[in-house]
Amino acid sequence: MTATFPIEPRLLLGPGPSPVHPRILDALSRPTIGHLDPQFLAIMDEVSDRLRRVFGTKNQMTFAISGTGSAAMEAAMANVVEPGDSVIVGVNGAFGGRLVDVGRRMGADVVAVEAEWGCIVPPERLIKALRAHPDARVLAVVHAETSTGVRQPLEEIGAAVASTDTLFLVDAVTSVGGLPVEVDRIGIDVCYAGTQKCLGVPPGLGPITFSPRAMERITTRRVPCQSFYLDVNLLAAYLREERRYHHTAPINMFYALHEGLAMVEEEGLEASWQRHAEVGTALQEALVERGFGLFAEEGHRLPQLTSAILPGGREEGPLRSALLERHGIEVGGGLGSATGKLWRVGLMGAGATQDTVERFLEAIDDLIPRR
Amino acid sequence: MTATFPIEPRLLLGPGPSPVHPRILDALSRPTIGHLDPQFLAIMDEVSDRLRRVFGTKNQMTFAISGTGSAAMEAAMANVVEPGDSVIVGVNGAFGGRLVDVGRRMGADVVAVEAEWGCIVPPERLIKALRAHPDARVLAVVHAETSTGVRQPLEEIGAAVASTDTLFLVDAVTSVGGLPVEVDRIGIDVCYAGTQKCLGVPPGLGPITFSPRAMERITTRRVPCQSFYLDVNLLAAYLREERRYHHTAPINMFYALHEGLAMVEEEGLEASWQRHAEVGTALQEALVERGFGLFAEEGHRLPQLTSAILPGGREEGPLRSALLERHGIEVGGGLGSATGKLWRVGLMGAGATQDTVERFLEAIDDLIPRR
Repeated sequence: MTATFPIEPRLLLGPGPSPVHPRILDALSRPTIGHLDPQFLAIMDEVSDRLRRVFGTKNQMTFAISGTGSAAMEAAMANVVEPGDSVIVGVNGAFGGRLVDVGRRMGADVVAVEAEWGCIVPPERLIKALRAHPDARVLAVVHAETSTGVRQPLEEIGAAVASTDTLFLVDAVTSVGGLPVEVDRIGIDVCYAGTQKCLGVPPGLGPITFSPRAMERITTRRVPCQSFYLDVNLLAAYLREERRYHHTAPINMFYALHEGLAMVEEEGLEASWQRHAEVGTALQEALVERGFGLFAEEGHRLPQLTSAILPGGREEGPLRSALLERHGIEVGGGLGSATGKLWRVGLMGAGATQDTVERFLEAIDDLIPRR
Repeated sequence: MTATFPIEPRLLLGPGPSPVHPRILDALSRPTIGHLDPQFLAIMDEVSDRLRRVFGTKNQMTFAISGTGSAAMEAAMANVVEPGDSVIVGVNGAFGGRLVDVGRRMGADVVAVEAEWGCIVPPERLIKALRAHPDARVLAVVHAETSTGVRQPLEEIGAAVASTDTLFLVDAVTSVGGLPVEVDRIGIDVCYAGTQKCLGVPPGLGPITFSPRAMERITTRRVPCQSFYLDVNLLAAYLREERRYHHTAPINMFYALHEGLAMVEEEGLEASWQRHAEVGTALQEALVERGFGLFAEEGHRLPQLTSAILPGGREEGPLRSALLERHGIEVGGGLGSATGKLWRVGLMGAGATQDTVERFLEAIDDLIPRR
């Protein structure tokens, strides 16, 4: 039986959601079963195993939060931070800014290390802040800043944090599946992702992982996590053998994530990174050729998310609407300080193909004829 | 293309999720589009309109939280309560207990008005607590206590709260769609629901509504809501005309809720209440006939969720497993003080039919032969 409303499909080339493969949509529509059904528990466990592989970690506490990537961000901070804790955050875009806001709401004393939008936060500035605040509970950065298209270097920060009691928290919402994340190798303690970016799964779950160091912090908190829903101590009792009821997991979304992660494994994680890198580079070259400016600092550009300033000072809004209405292609506008200036073009998940790039460029050439 | 894993369907007669109609599963698998796509915004607005009808309210701020019913509970409390506020909670089961926990985690001074599991919280005791704490910010009760099968009377409490500055908060996770909720008539200020109960939609969204009185409280808070993800002041900017990005809504889950609410409208809300009432009564009579005891206080039994003590002091666990394995039927075990003693049998959404009752009774008669 079919649903009563029509959806006109779009080619999703914005900052997420990315195009969802029919196999994943099919998984989504499998019959709903219970959250304590042995069949579902097996799926949830397999999802955790597969997430460990895309995160590059052996962390036991790796699972999916029952909310979107923003809920995972909140879960990341709320579980390791207590009121009054000092937290260092690198801010070079909207999502770094959000980490500051989230931290302050939970009573943290936030030290924001700001850099210009479109640039990285220089690791040495973060390391300097760490030396100035040796008691900091957390140092947080955004790996793939979706608001600007910047790829933040992590390695030096991970090395610096390792010799301290500070936990390294990394927002990998837009990087997981599209870029190496390597939680264990880099020494990340808390890392979270989105499903609707390079994994190509609809939005609705927030993959997350906590290192043993982070878990020690969580199990020895002085006051309980401000959120019952996101409390990892309670979630652990559901995820582990005792299977104690905590909340009703979004069953069908887990089917979809299970399938999306299976597809990443079939392709191979490194092949997926490679595919994202190749098409992203091809797109960026083609855009420059057409007079677009690239907003992100050279040498630190994400392949999967390109911030492109329109040629000839054109206003982005009307062209973005025309792209959607005439060509059925969605791209994103700018956020915060980048509003009105640029498009954010995502080539993520099933959208990261050479065909997609060609279809997009044809539409661009129709809307902005080349001289 | 089909997904790679099999799911053996179950007849879901537990405390939720309830059976999901194929039309809703079909809606779930429609192509994913963007959270700012005009097509999606129209669907979200229609979902809000339809939710107003099932909640019985004209409240502008009526929408679905991007998490499950437990996230909606947290959103309800976190938005209207500030640290140090006094909050009265009626506790006669697991979900009342959870409201206490949620309130305390956000720094509220919680007054728990406790009653025995299986009984209502006498309205006069709640009203007495209200007189003793005239400064209480919130008085909260659970309309349909899913842990026990008790239906809490609301009318007198609503009338008492109306003449005070205290907000009336009602957990209607298991009642919406299966029982009259009537937010406006009763004078409820904050009310939330689940999708996976009497609405028959998979878990993953938390319908919620805030009265103008609650919204005034929210817009004049002294400190921001502890949760960025659940902050109604920020969500309002996405839901209203400005459509300011806040988080990526779980697109496909909205398709499913949209379809589930369409089906409630096709049947008629009163017809849906009637159907739940009839099959629930029929089940309860048939169980008593078979020697089961009904855990919930007479006169205050939910039709959609029956707590049944097994006949002859039988242990519930092994029989519940046999019911799942031999008959493919899921029911729930007891929670908290009711663990080990009873089953929780839900007849909700598409599961609330006479056929379902018959199939369940046949299975019971197979497992527990009648003398």
